Amino acid sequence: MNDKGMPGLLSPEHVLHTITEELTARFAGTFTAETIERYVFESYAALARTAKVTSHLPALTDRFATDRLTALAQSKGLHPHDVPEVLFVCVQNAGRSQIAAALLDHHAAGRVHVRSAGSSPIEQIHPAVLEVMTELGLDLSREFPKPLTDDVVRAADVVITMGCGDACPIYPGKRYEDWALTDPADASPQEARRIRDEIDAHVKTLLAEIAPGT
Amino acid sequence: MNDKGMPGLLSPEHVLHTITEELTARFAGTFTAETIERYVFESYAALARTAKVTSHLPALTDRFATDRLTALAQSKGLHPHDVPEVLFVCVQNAGRSQIAAALLDHHAAGRVHVRSAGSSPIEQIHPAVLEVMTELGLDLSREFPKPLTDDVVRAADVVITMGCGDACPIYPGKRYEDWALTDPADASPQEARRIRDEIDAHVKTLLAEIAPGT
Repeated sequence: MNDKGMPGLLSPEHVLHTITEELTARFAGTFTAETIERYVFESYAALARTAKVTSHLPALTDRFATDRLTALAQSKGLHPHDVPEVLFVCVQNAGRSQIAAALLDHHAAGRVHVRSAGSSPIEQIHPAVLEVMTELGLDLSREFPKPLTDDVVRAADVVITMGCGDACPIYPGKRYEDWALTDPADASPQEARRIRDEIDAHVKTLLAEIAPGT
Repeated sequence: MNDKGMPGLLSPEHVLHTITEELTARFAGTFTAETIERYVFESYAALARTAKVTSHLPALTDRFATDRLTALAQSKGLHPHDVPEVLFVCVQNAGRSQIAAALLDHHAAGRVHVRSAGSSPIEQIHPAVLEVMTELGLDLSREFPKPLTDDVVRAADVVITMGCGDACPIYPGKRYEDWALTDPADASPQEARRIRDEIDAHVKTLLAEIAPGT
């Protein structure tokens, strides 16, 4: 039997407790410390399942848990929710949903708030996608694939699915759309550009409908 | 734009609230209603991400959330934890980890408690795996692939990983092992039988170490 022992791996426990304490102070009066501890540790476990490079995991856990708690607070009316919330869901959260989220965020210029997630997230955003978004001046280097969670669905006014089947819970009172798009995984730069521009057209139509004009 | 409307899909909300109420009563004094609601809804979202047949989802959600809350209570010393807890983790939770869990549960006859999970669970257990386990009189038809969560890692005394890399959080005070095994996905019945017997030898060695004799 091959006992790993894991001598080189630092236990994440200490840093996760520090994140928990900070978020408990930040969400005081909104969520109990118990809920926040579970969000931090489960967010870590969820990202660790698919991440390859683990050095960034605590920082990503902090951002993921904070955004999920913010979404939950919004859905309960305990946090400002002044503009439409849009959630993009694809399979890997590494291509289509990341492109759509970045483009809508860019065009909306604050008139919409955007999130994205995947039914089966992979370790990182496709390099070709980063490249064709950089061509538009949009930097996705800080974004990362995240699993679809209940909280972000609840906070959404509009849910756009892209190739992920029925992976998204259906709740009343939300607008659901499914966009048929080519997956940019393994796409050439030229194909990735075409998919990006196709998504851009969808995004502009959506924006005109949910947040017309200024 | 193609608005789905989702007329055929029943919202899961009502049945999930019913499950939440039942579990809140069951875990009264251990967890807050807020924690239990989040466990039920996030367990549903996690299973929905990868499930194809959604008709069983509420029943599976009930079992998954109950087991996760039990694990969390064990890790906090709020629930009986009389025998060693063993967690098997593979990639899909559809082959190796399911075989190992069923065999250890069978041989241990109550001297060990067993859980399993996957870093990237798929929709169902491989048919060949069900078949070769049935040959031993072990019925896995009620089991289902589940994502690896923090709570079951915390409750475990022994964590056995099988091909899932560093997907599992490392916490102090637990025994970690990695077993190198062939993946029975797409295996012929003959190959699946060989893998099953290989896992069985590992499981018997482990059992002799963690719970010797009666």
